[in-house]
Amino acid sequence: MRDVAVIGVGVTKFGELWDKSFRDIGVNAGMMAMADAGLSGSEVDALFIGNMSAGRFINQQNIGAMIADYAGFALNHIPSTRIEAGAASGGIAFRQGVMAVASGMHDIVVVGGAEKMTDVDDASSNSILDSTADQQWEASMGATMASLFAMIARRYIHEGLATREEIASVSVNGHAHGALNPNAQFRKAIKLESVLRSGMVADPLGLFDCAPISDGAAAVILCPMDKAKEYTDNPVRVAAVTQASDTLALFQRDSITSFASSRIAAERAFAAAKLSPSDISVAEVHDCYSIEGLMAVEDLGLYGRGKGGKAFLEGQTLFDAGKIAINTSGGLKARGHPIGATGVAQIVEIAEQVRGTADKRQVKGARYGMTLNLGGTGSAATVSILEGI
Amino acid sequence: MRDVAVIGVGVTKFGELWDKSFRDIGVNAGMMAMADAGLSGSEVDALFIGNMSAGRFINQQNIGAMIADYAGFALNHIPSTRIEAGAASGGIAFRQGVMAVASGMHDIVVVGGAEKMTDVDDASSNSILDSTADQQWEASMGATMASLFAMIARRYIHEGLATREEIASVSVNGHAHGALNPNAQFRKAIKLESVLRSGMVADPLGLFDCAPISDGAAAVILCPMDKAKEYTDNPVRVAAVTQASDTLALFQRDSITSFASSRIAAERAFAAAKLSPSDISVAEVHDCYSIEGLMAVEDLGLYGRGKGGKAFLEGQTLFDAGKIAINTSGGLKARGHPIGATGVAQIVEIAEQVRGTADKRQVKGARYGMTLNLGGTGSAATVSILEGI
Repeated sequence: MRDVAVIGVGVTKFGELWDKSFRDIGVNAGMMAMADAGLSGSEVDALFIGNMSAGRFINQQNIGAMIADYAGFALNHIPSTRIEAGAASGGIAFRQGVMAVASGMHDIVVVGGAEKMTDVDDASSNSILDSTADQQWEASMGATMASLFAMIARRYIHEGLATREEIASVSVNGHAHGALNPNAQFRKAIKLESVLRSGMVADPLGLFDCAPISDGAAAVILCPMDKAKEYTDNPVRVAAVTQASDTLALFQRDSITSFASSRIAAERAFAAAKLSPSDISVAEVHDCYSIEGLMAVEDLGLYGRGKGGKAFLEGQTLFDAGKIAINTSGGLKARGHPIGATGVAQIVEIAEQVRGTADKRQVKGARYGMTLNLGGTGSAATVSILEGI
Repeated sequence: MRDVAVIGVGVTKFGELWDKSFRDIGVNAGMMAMADAGLSGSEVDALFIGNMSAGRFINQQNIGAMIADYAGFALNHIPSTRIEAGAASGGIAFRQGVMAVASGMHDIVVVGGAEKMTDVDDASSNSILDSTADQQWEASMGATMASLFAMIARRYIHEGLATREEIASVSVNGHAHGALNPNAQFRKAIKLESVLRSGMVADPLGLFDCAPISDGAAAVILCPMDKAKEYTDNPVRVAAVTQASDTLALFQRDSITSFASSRIAAERAFAAAKLSPSDISVAEVHDCYSIEGLMAVEDLGLYGRGKGGKAFLEGQTLFDAGKIAINTSGGLKARGHPIGATGVAQIVEIAEQVRGTADKRQVKGARYGMTLNLGGTGSAATVSILEGI
């Protein structure tokens, strides 16, 4: 297999983009990434798109072909493939793109992620999100994503792994970074009190524990490592990208205070990259709900079991704390969470960090960064490790 | 890149499977393929699933995780990835599986395709199918898949490329073969007159020119060619698998009587396999509507421009005619067309043919066979060439 490099990145503003269509944002992110890599477009020979549910959000299937068409790639008839794995769609699309280059099948690959969620009402968008849980044994019984993660949070507290305040501090951390990210949906720092007093969604999780409904898109350009210097002076090496699955329904797991899929994807990634958690300077983790951001840093091994909460609460996770910075983009909570875009946006943020272009939220001397992107309640997980060259 | 082999195949009965769930059929096809390859399951290290719209048909996203779970693979936490490209979902999932093995990233890969379409009413299923066309410029204006293919058929006749009778004979060919396939949805030979007199759907296409709404699933097992003999005495080599895109909407094409995506995917496949159309003994082509079956054999280069119709009408396409046999499974029209399953079922049929296990519809001495699987109105196309070893 060939080593693969990220040579360009692009991300739109995330938020309620009423004046933009799915096509607009998907194409915009791709164009930004191509400009970043200095490509004109004709060099691209395959496209991979992460998208969760354009079929239900905008009544459009066949999204691979649509993005290829509107980005102008249909002129060259390049292969364009859409991946869906709930909220892990973007991260798993990235893995397919890496596989395409690593295999030698393609040379210049665009990986995009996009979702336009605000064209349907809130009840519909929640029903669509819940369809990434087990429809037969969870969603149809009334379980929602929020209530499933609330059960996890309750159990976390019950087992003494974290306090309510520690869980809430994941959102405080995200907002502190979101304030520094011009593309974030929420650019306002918040206090712990605000999270604790926010309107109840599913006990113990309040509104500020939950990532928002968002529109947005992100894209990265991949090429073989040995050609990367032709396009950019600061390529980023894909040191590992792994993926793992677990049961669709929570009730079938041995534990709900740790996701085996996250742990195993992380173990496989560290093994493939020949690295350990102590090598990591910065990570983007999947805080669809605050509790999951906390569980993620423990499942990745960045913090010991039951130790993540304290790190968040004490601000060790901030970009300038000199420890392992978490969710410098703002995370899903503050940057926003356009489902299919999220995993690719995580790659964009880590690529910016390890190549030293993360501007006001730059983690000093970051060489290795990682991402954890989840589908459902951890039924799908994908982990990437990137290295600045 | 490593050479890749198909070492096991499985397909469920296609039809209106009221007593079976999506989970049942998806898992059943996989189990049949594993039994065919003599696998117990623990050897499998990745899963790729083609599915068009479980999100709308059964309100379940995150299908990769679901199938991994219900097939028992979640126990090993293997990566499971869902691909969507309209009706090309299955064929493109097959391409991702081949890429995963060719790259060296995985050794034993299951590629499955499944769709459960009959749990919604006909109006809903048509709306879902139409969402693979351009929602903004076609479907929202009232264009349906049937009406778009009807325009193609009219233009075909107008340009003198085929007669109405020749177009109808594609369905006659499919039904003749469906009668010999125990898993086909329709196991009854039909006369040309029956197609011509069938109820009008979209002029000139009648009911018997249109593939049915179906439930069903198919699966194949892949491994590196150099390990294939450990599992089976008659492996099938993947000589090529290619993919191409085109504009989402028909009106943006130079021509609607030939699909550039099909032609280019075929050219790339013949080049990669170092073969030409004259090497092919049997092909499964995408007759979602009779006209497309006809156009497909011409776009693949199996018959000259305007010559395909005569071949169908004269029965040259039958399995025992000694020419290039077309749709020996019954094709989409008679075998059935559970969208996400179709591309994988095409691979199953060609694998059976080139390894000599196609029973009553065996094409004598078939060594090379090919498939053409399409998404939308040809906005996505994938072509595979298989070789019996």
